[in-house]
Amino acid sequence: MTGQELFENIKRKKTFLCVGLDTDIKKIPSHLLEKDDPLFAFNKAVIDATAAYCIAYKPNLAFYESCGVKGWTAFEKTVKYIKEHYPDQFIIADAKRGDIGNTSAMYAHTFFKEADVDALTIAPYMGEDSVTPFLEYAGKWVILLALTSNKGSHDFQLTEDMQGEKLFESVLRKSQAWADDEQMMYVVGATQGLMFERIRKIVPHHFLLVPGVGAQGGSLEEVCRYGMNEKCGLIVNSSRAIIYADNTTDFAIRSSEAAHSVQSEMEKYLSQKGII
Amino acid sequence: MTGQELFENIKRKKTFLCVGLDTDIKKIPSHLLEKDDPLFAFNKAVIDATAAYCIAYKPNLAFYESCGVKGWTAFEKTVKYIKEHYPDQFIIADAKRGDIGNTSAMYAHTFFKEADVDALTIAPYMGEDSVTPFLEYAGKWVILLALTSNKGSHDFQLTEDMQGEKLFESVLRKSQAWADDEQMMYVVGATQGLMFERIRKIVPHHFLLVPGVGAQGGSLEEVCRYGMNEKCGLIVNSSRAIIYADNTTDFAIRSSEAAHSVQSEMEKYLSQKGII
Repeated sequence: MTGQELFENIKRKKTFLCVGLDTDIKKIPSHLLEKDDPLFAFNKAVIDATAAYCIAYKPNLAFYESCGVKGWTAFEKTVKYIKEHYPDQFIIADAKRGDIGNTSAMYAHTFFKEADVDALTIAPYMGEDSVTPFLEYAGKWVILLALTSNKGSHDFQLTEDMQGEKLFESVLRKSQAWADDEQMMYVVGATQGLMFERIRKIVPHHFLLVPGVGAQGGSLEEVCRYGMNEKCGLIVNSSRAIIYADNTTDFAIRSSEAAHSVQSEMEKYLSQKGII
Repeated sequence: MTGQELFENIKRKKTFLCVGLDTDIKKIPSHLLEKDDPLFAFNKAVIDATAAYCIAYKPNLAFYESCGVKGWTAFEKTVKYIKEHYPDQFIIADAKRGDIGNTSAMYAHTFFKEADVDALTIAPYMGEDSVTPFLEYAGKWVILLALTSNKGSHDFQLTEDMQGEKLFESVLRKSQAWADDEQMMYVVGATQGLMFERIRKIVPHHFLLVPGVGAQGGSLEEVCRYGMNEKCGLIVNSSRAIIYADNTTDFAIRSSEAAHSVQSEMEKYLSQKGII
């Protein structure tokens, strides 16, 4: 999917919501545990209930891996289901991979060729040659960690070098030489508020994947005020607040309502910015 | 396994070799492709052929994930096989994970509870709360990326902050507050030569996992000269040079010879240091 296609979807559906499929076998409604594949049954219901209100899904690999072979199967079935039934959805595998070249090439093959997702989150610590193997797939996106939503983001990401450049700014600046804004996005946590202004000075045109709204306490209003650009440039993720809105047999209805509520707020900000 | 047990194994077997199981379905001998589970068949043969010459195995998850469900099964079977037949081997899952707290907790459960490996490689970019969930498992080890073996290690890991401290040094220093040398090791690439001296000033007692000998060109002699401490403190990994020493039906014999050759060199350095 191109950046322009993503933007068209955002305008048409009046939303830039990504629903995070952090599907935890211990948290899904208990009646689903009787199903053959409880993780997939949960995802299917959540996807059907929320697809009208979002433009992306982000399965988090940790949750699938924790169920071993069954989890991996559920992940593959989920991606296939989205592609077949909702081909306009952008699919992000949240895996935060990154390794030496020949190993990154294996991960790239797994996610971009086998699973065939649109984008993959990547950790930048190992530098250029750990990222470039992921850029060899036309139409696929690298979403590089820049400034994350957690407390630990202060440990290294905000360290300033001799020139006063913070590590996450160095990641943003250097990585632009590896790919342009049609192949690269950045993770910036919603909890980072004013930092979005600094980030937009370095990457004015890139899409940012923004986790941390909802359970982690980030403000959507603040993210939009400082982070939105003329083509929206934001994919805001919410996981727990949407998929675990309820854990009874009504869970899918409540997920739908939660997603609809976020979409309505997003529509307001898109309108204020003059995008729709 | 404790650090002392690892050291005892090193002395007894006169080796600190880790065999990296980067098992690539495209590179294993073609006659194995007829087997039910070619990845496992290859691993089993390599393990049986090399166990006398090494103290650790390091399956690289990228290679297993690339085969989807079948790959995950082969990974699980490999770990189980090593634990059953060679219980003195230290098993490292090379996965370079790391995410926000609740996600890292899922990865920790997967690798330390389900797969039950001894150690997991972790990327430090997201800071303390992305690492601590892995430290909640008694007897299990975090192996944190510090200074990696690839060219891209220069992009961010060597950046100096206002006080002249390089990023990898900051990782070594700060992470010592998260766990001691009985739960934490560090990845330092064999290609980094003289940097081992700087590293040993910050972490004199920790074990270092050292990839990059063999196919990547690092020198074992140099690693030992600058990196070995009184309790060895080194686990040196070789993957391709051992497991792909040959791709005929003689592959296991050649792997055994390659591992034996590295072990002999290691015995010399252990002896020179007065450890054995």
